[in-house]
Amino acid sequence: MNFIIHDDESLEDLQINQLYILQKKTEFRFGMDAVLLANFIKAKPGARIIDLGTGTGIIPILLSAKTQAKHIAGIEIQHDIAEMAKRSVSGNGLDDTIEILEMDIKACADALGTSCWDVVSNPPYTKVGSGLVNPDSSKAIARHEILCSLRDIVMTAAALLKNHGEFYMVHRPDRLCDIMTEMRNARIEPKLLRLVCPRLDQAPSLILVSGMKNGNPGMKHLPPLFIYTPSGDYSEEARVIYGGSI
Amino acid sequence: MNFIIHDDESLEDLQINQLYILQKKTEFRFGMDAVLLANFIKAKPGARIIDLGTGTGIIPILLSAKTQAKHIAGIEIQHDIAEMAKRSVSGNGLDDTIEILEMDIKACADALGTSCWDVVSNPPYTKVGSGLVNPDSSKAIARHEILCSLRDIVMTAAALLKNHGEFYMVHRPDRLCDIMTEMRNARIEPKLLRLVCPRLDQAPSLILVSGMKNGNPGMKHLPPLFIYTPSGDYSEEARVIYGGSI
Repeated sequence: MNFIIHDDESLEDLQINQLYILQKKTEFRFGMDAVLLANFIKAKPGARIIDLGTGTGIIPILLSAKTQAKHIAGIEIQHDIAEMAKRSVSGNGLDDTIEILEMDIKACADALGTSCWDVVSNPPYTKVGSGLVNPDSSKAIARHEILCSLRDIVMTAAALLKNHGEFYMVHRPDRLCDIMTEMRNARIEPKLLRLVCPRLDQAPSLILVSGMKNGNPGMKHLPPLFIYTPSGDYSEEARVIYGGSI
Repeated sequence: MNFIIHDDESLEDLQINQLYILQKKTEFRFGMDAVLLANFIKAKPGARIIDLGTGTGIIPILLSAKTQAKHIAGIEIQHDIAEMAKRSVSGNGLDDTIEILEMDIKACADALGTSCWDVVSNPPYTKVGSGLVNPDSSKAIARHEILCSLRDIVMTAAALLKNHGEFYMVHRPDRLCDIMTEMRNARIEPKLLRLVCPRLDQAPSLILVSGMKNGNPGMKHLPPLFIYTPSGDYSEEARVIYGGSI
């Protein structure tokens, strides 16, 4: 373990395989959504995975522990964040598996090859124009569709994926119809949905969706995932997903 | 209460407003899906509601108790079933509110007027070609897309609805993407989704969806509905929906 840590950064223990990750102390920190997405992704041994908008690199780093992927690329357009993610990868000794690329998502398919990736993942974005967004802030670029729309992401995923390759996404529940229609339009057929609800009696706050390139219509669903029990503790499943760190 | 009951029929107490419904003793009986859909539907006082593929008339009869709708039309293509539904309506003294029409769903919009209905509902269908289906049986016609595809239904609903009128559907979870894409194509924007799960730890067995004609994109979700508690009893919410009859 040999991390170069800047003054505005902290090093967080991921509580799995002795992995750590660098985060900004204030604004740029990974969230529950990324951990849930990494847990939702299935990849075969030897898979080639690409994470679009990787941020801190949390998903590639978690997937390096959870899967036997051969190669995981994390795409990040913001220089400072990509550079921090590279130091997290190096500090964990994962340079042989994970490659952080400072690149626009929309340029990925041309740069990295079409129809050759087994799995593509994407963290959540918020639609441009919803809420108060400062388009210059790095947090806004990471969380909102400023540089890249939902359609751009799904079209890019479709270009990158092999036939029958899988696309995984965590997103806000209000975008469900947009996600379904964009995926089908791009010939990534939605195949699996899981709603994530804070509590038993609450509506979902996140959705986990996967689809298969050139898959047949017909969706499966997982049981809803509840983060808290009625008494306010983390649920057993949330504890397992977080690797005992909560 | 004055019901004409045929030998192959039984009269069921709906446990709400002293309403009853005729069913066939064996094959043609209303199910939980219809009761859940009726419970999911919201209609303003004075609304004009149309139920596509009404079967026994269960949804119009339940909505007559639950809403202050001015007029509820139930469309049923099968003569014997439509005739039984008419006797249920008459037996309950609901002829002033409910009209059962023996008609092909695809002919509804021409016959009953376009852009003039507040609410359209539709019970579940199974895709043609899935499972073992005898296309001649009345049960198969009711439950499968033999005479009418999902697209036919959604297009018909779009034609019938007023601007901002609402479409409600109960369906199988595997059709979620088909429903979202057909609704958006027909300019009925999906607005609300509720998953119905048998138990806490099980995937949904039904989905309840509503959409608004010419609505803006953006979905809301209700908390999942669980039918049974972990100990195997009906949940409190299922009991309320069933009106104490379970």
